[in-house]
Amino acid sequence: MKRTVYFVSESTGITAETVGHSLISQFDSVDFEQVYMPYINTVLRAQALTARMQEAADRDGVRPVVFATMLDAEVGDILRAGNCFYLELFEGFIDPLSRELGVAPSRKSGRSHAITKPSSYTKRIDAINFAMANDDGVRPDNFNHADVVLLGVSRSGKTPTCLYLAMHYGLRPANYPITEEDFERGDVSPLVWACREKVFALTIDAQRLQRIREERRPGSPYASLERCQEDIRRAAQMFKRLEVPVLNTTNQSIEEISSHILKRVKTHIE
Amino acid sequence: MKRTVYFVSESTGITAETVGHSLISQFDSVDFEQVYMPYINTVLRAQALTARMQEAADRDGVRPVVFATMLDAEVGDILRAGNCFYLELFEGFIDPLSRELGVAPSRKSGRSHAITKPSSYTKRIDAINFAMANDDGVRPDNFNHADVVLLGVSRSGKTPTCLYLAMHYGLRPANYPITEEDFERGDVSPLVWACREKVFALTIDAQRLQRIREERRPGSPYASLERCQEDIRRAAQMFKRLEVPVLNTTNQSIEEISSHILKRVKTHIE
Repeated sequence: MKRTVYFVSESTGITAETVGHSLISQFDSVDFEQVYMPYINTVLRAQALTARMQEAADRDGVRPVVFATMLDAEVGDILRAGNCFYLELFEGFIDPLSRELGVAPSRKSGRSHAITKPSSYTKRIDAINFAMANDDGVRPDNFNHADVVLLGVSRSGKTPTCLYLAMHYGLRPANYPITEEDFERGDVSPLVWACREKVFALTIDAQRLQRIREERRPGSPYASLERCQEDIRRAAQMFKRLEVPVLNTTNQSIEEISSHILKRVKTHIE
Repeated sequence: MKRTVYFVSESTGITAETVGHSLISQFDSVDFEQVYMPYINTVLRAQALTARMQEAADRDGVRPVVFATMLDAEVGDILRAGNCFYLELFEGFIDPLSRELGVAPSRKSGRSHAITKPSSYTKRIDAINFAMANDDGVRPDNFNHADVVLLGVSRSGKTPTCLYLAMHYGLRPANYPITEEDFERGDVSPLVWACREKVFALTIDAQRLQRIREERRPGSPYASLERCQEDIRRAAQMFKRLEVPVLNTTNQSIEEISSHILKRVKTHIE
């Protein structure tokens, strides 16, 4: 049975989607059809969405679930009155928090993902630019300017993880791919050794690596299982000598890997 | 007065941080010290955090605020008993949702940001790789494979927006920088015209653009205010002829720009 779910907000809807997605992930036997509805910030848009909700109810044979973060009561009430199971995600927290802080809430929507702190936003954008400029070991002489340096064989997940760390945590990440040259020498560059206290190694299972490389260069020696196994084995020896933390990207998402790295690097968010 | 805030979870803590950050953004007169505490998944770690909370209370002269998403009651109860104002963000929703769906929750933590749907995760990683390979107009012949094509002058915010669209929504984005060559010709490449139904133009205020370019190439003609104004003016003429949506990155974050783009491209998340 299909169940339609709406993530609704007056602004980006990122919070509604994040929480709503977390909540439905607790019910993995249900087949959810997820619909993202940002910028429902007028009575007209709320009415149009209410009509869509009714269509979903008719189609699914059961009313849809709505995860909403609506600060404007007038617009929120229109949705709430529709044919849906409505969960307002902020409501129960704002008043208790307001009493605890002794400050009234602004009730302005869209504060969370807007540029409210330009210095912190600029830091994140600069970090993304840094990650782009220091991807794939192109500037190992720049490692001293990086907050973290990810190390791993080709296609082990370094680039997506670096981009996530930059985008979400404003960390300046660089990465260093272990190349054929390193394998021949039996060691990574001295520039990696010089910054080993900020190095995190990424590893991956050989079969998974083979599938990824096979998509990139089908039938190549680079994508053979033997080559993948050998690369991973030799990289593991290097990681051991360097004595750096090793994270496995096979079953961990870039969000999970990034959280582990951040926890070790720092616990303060600006 | 400083107020310490903890975002706590048994897994990545991304949901706790997203909601907690949204909630505190309603109280912008308070000076929050934000601390990110993922992977608090044992009694021992909860006890250590409780000790840190007490230190914060002593230092700040007021108890800290804790935003938590704890599915394990034993670990959660230790935090709750600490010297803090404790808000459990899932609690009030899981039972009502369970009753509505007629399904018991799994109570497994870390489901939301884990690789629970490999196909959807792989799609996001592929999209990031696509964004990297199609950044800065390097492959305009590839625009037919892209879901969206961002168009704008140098440093108008195309790359970070593309990366966000790929990472969060699994969209395959490309971008095309308007170059001196385009300005001389008075038009963008025919390859942009050929895919104009998926083009979004980014613009930016001249003074902001000048500051960004100035950081990149200090004192260059490229970074002069006149050149920035002229580039923006001529780009705007091109956008008008193309009849594409124009988004301004001066005061909108990459999250906000991306939400606007996604809303126009599609409303379904996989």
